[in-house]
Amino acid sequence: MNEIRILGVDTSLRSSGVAVIEVFGNQMRALAYGRIYNKASLSHSRCLAAIHPEIDQLITEFSPDEAAIEGAFFAKNVKTAMILGQARGVVLAACALRTLPVYEYSPRSIKQATVGAGAATKEQVAKMVMRLLGLAEQPQEDAADALAAAICHAHHRGLPEALRLKPV
Amino acid sequence: MNEIRILGVDTSLRSSGVAVIEVFGNQMRALAYGRIYNKASLSHSRCLAAIHPEIDQLITEFSPDEAAIEGAFFAKNVKTAMILGQARGVVLAACALRTLPVYEYSPRSIKQATVGAGAATKEQVAKMVMRLLGLAEQPQEDAADALAAAICHAHHRGLPEALRLKPV
Repeated sequence: MNEIRILGVDTSLRSSGVAVIEVFGNQMRALAYGRIYNKASLSHSRCLAAIHPEIDQLITEFSPDEAAIEGAFFAKNVKTAMILGQARGVVLAACALRTLPVYEYSPRSIKQATVGAGAATKEQVAKMVMRLLGLAEQPQEDAADALAAAICHAHHRGLPEALRLKPV
Repeated sequence: MNEIRILGVDTSLRSSGVAVIEVFGNQMRALAYGRIYNKASLSHSRCLAAIHPEIDQLITEFSPDEAAIEGAFFAKNVKTAMILGQARGVVLAACALRTLPVYEYSPRSIKQATVGAGAATKEQVAKMVMRLLGLAEQPQEDAADALAAAICHAHHRGLPEALRLKPV
């Protein structure tokens, strides 16, 4: 069994969580996590432009094998979906330009995979992520969501081939 | 009065129209137009990844001063908005990474600016674009929409400063 590295991303325009974990059998550890923070004063398109090189740099630095993103299947309305879609498009393109396959998970699956309950709060996710990865401190919420997406994908990879999702 | 070059984009996942026009006073001419076509067999994220370098190359080749995109303010539903948003995010980021200001126009404004009627058909837009730019042939529909976005922006730039849109 080889170790694999997973890039997790919880995308948003102003504050995207990003994380890289390493998985070896049942062992998991965090290599990096944080967030891409865009000031409120930045224009919409400058925010989008800031996301691309950050994702690209993480790929260069940690050479992840696969990526997992939180899919926003339930955006509140068309306007929110459009804005969120834009940020996700930049992340998907940045990964695909580096031929990194991206897997998409619903917020519910990600909570289920980490906390064991699809309706868990952000606080519960952050606490559980800290425990699962043996972190010294509770990660910031967006970073925790990115770690949780990566953990969700690590679990999913353990399923028989036929049950696994296809990359987007 | 200086000439300016405008990049127009009509974004979609599978077939984005792209165009560059040059404007000098009341004169306009098309420098390039076409579409970024993604085969149906390409995965979602590969389509997104294909858009970025094409936009980047157009910027390198034609050095546009400003960009105009058709904003999809009226997507049918959340899912459509999300997919369209992704493609638009890639275009916005590609432009912003080259510090190209992007202006967004509603489909209605674009039709109004070219055909003179907000409810014009794609066919009417293509015919009018052909006439306004003195093209020898009617452009393909997506390319025509991109040309129309650029023309719309050219008109808009003629407005007094206070009435102009801000870039996104």
